[in-house]
Amino acid sequence: MEKIKLGPQTLLFPMPAVLVGSKVDRKVNFMTAAWCGIASHKPPALSVAIRESRFTMKGIKENSSFSINVPSAGLVKKVDFCGIYSGKKKDKSKIFQIYYGVLNTAPLIEECPVNLECKVTHTIHLGSHTLIVAEIIETYINGDCLTDGNADAEKIDPLVYSPGTTQYQRLGEVIGKAFHIGKEQT
Amino acid sequence: MEKIKLGPQTLLFPMPAVLVGSKVDRKVNFMTAAWCGIASHKPPALSVAIRESRFTMKGIKENSSFSINVPSAGLVKKVDFCGIYSGKKKDKSKIFQIYYGVLNTAPLIEECPVNLECKVTHTIHLGSHTLIVAEIIETYINGDCLTDGNADAEKIDPLVYSPGTTQYQRLGEVIGKAFHIGKEQT
Repeated sequence: MEKIKLGPQTLLFPMPAVLVGSKVDRKVNFMTAAWCGIASHKPPALSVAIRESRFTMKGIKENSSFSINVPSAGLVKKVDFCGIYSGKKKDKSKIFQIYYGVLNTAPLIEECPVNLECKVTHTIHLGSHTLIVAEIIETYINGDCLTDGNADAEKIDPLVYSPGTTQYQRLGEVIGKAFHIGKEQT
Repeated sequence: MEKIKLGPQTLLFPMPAVLVGSKVDRKVNFMTAAWCGIASHKPPALSVAIRESRFTMKGIKENSSFSINVPSAGLVKKVDFCGIYSGKKKDKSKIFQIYYGVLNTAPLIEECPVNLECKVTHTIHLGSHTLIVAEIIETYINGDCLTDGNADAEKIDPLVYSPGTTQYQRLGEVIGKAFHIGKEQT
C-alpha cells in the first residue's frame, strides 16, 4: 500500500467527543473536547488538552476542578453547539440538566450517561494547548447502562469524533473480547 | 435517570486501540494501548500512558521516540495479541511488515493505515502509569484512506476499545458534521 506523508498531524482514531464542565465566575459552562484520554489507573487520572484562551480554562484555573461528561449519540446537536460557541458569548448554563457530586465546582450533566468529577494535578504548557492532567475522584453512570455491574458501551451509545473528515459517528458492531481474541493469533 | 456511584474509575468512551512501536535493545516491539490521546495542535503532540514495568517503556527511554499505529478492525487478533503478551517473553518483531520514516527508532506498521512518528518531550510520573507526552514529527496514511485530501475514518475502519465490558468494536453510522450540526441547536 502506498503511504502518503501528510506532515505532522493530530490524526488519532477514534476520538471521544466529551463535554468539559466548569464554573466560570460562578456560572456553569460546557466545552466540547475530543482531545481527552486516560492517563493513569492508580490513581485514576485523565488528560484533556485545552487552549489557554478558552473560557473553560478560566474556570478550571479558578477551581482546580472540572467534570468530564460522556454524551450519548442522541445529544450530537447540543454537543456540537458547545464546541462551536464560546461561553464568553453564549450562555450554555441552561442547555442541560445539572447535578453535583462531591465537588460544587464540577457541574455534571444529567443527560450524559457517564460523568467524571476531576481535580487538577498537573498543568503542562505545550504551545497552542495546555494539557491538564487530573485525578478522577468520582464516577457516575446511569443505572441502565450497566451489564453485570460493568459499564456497557452499547448501552451508553457514546458519540465518536472522527478527525480528518470532521464527522460524528456512533459505535458499530462488536468484533471481539479484549484480552481474549488475541489468544487465537499464532 | 438513576445515577450509580462507581467510585473513581477510568471510564471514557470511546477509546482508541493503537499499537505503540519501539525498539528495545535494538529489537522491534509493539504494545497495545487504549490510553492515548491528542495533547496539542501546535506543535502537534499526543500523550500515551504506560506502566514503568512495560518492555515498551524501556525502548522509549532508550530512544526518546516511538511510533503510534492506528490499526483497522481487521487486525483485531494481532492487536489484542500485542496487548496480552509482553515483549519480554514473546518476539513481536515478525507480526507486522515494518517500515521506517524519519527516525530509525520508531518502527511503523505497514498494515496499519495511519502511522505517527513521535519524539518524547515530557514524562510525568502519575502512579501506576507514566504519561509520555510526545511531539508528532511525521504522519503517514494509506493513499486509499483519503477523501478530498482528508483522512477518512470510514476508510481507515479503526478499531475501537470499549472499557467496562472490555470489547473491541467498529465505527458505526455517521450522524453529523462537526462544527456544523450544532448550528441547528437553539
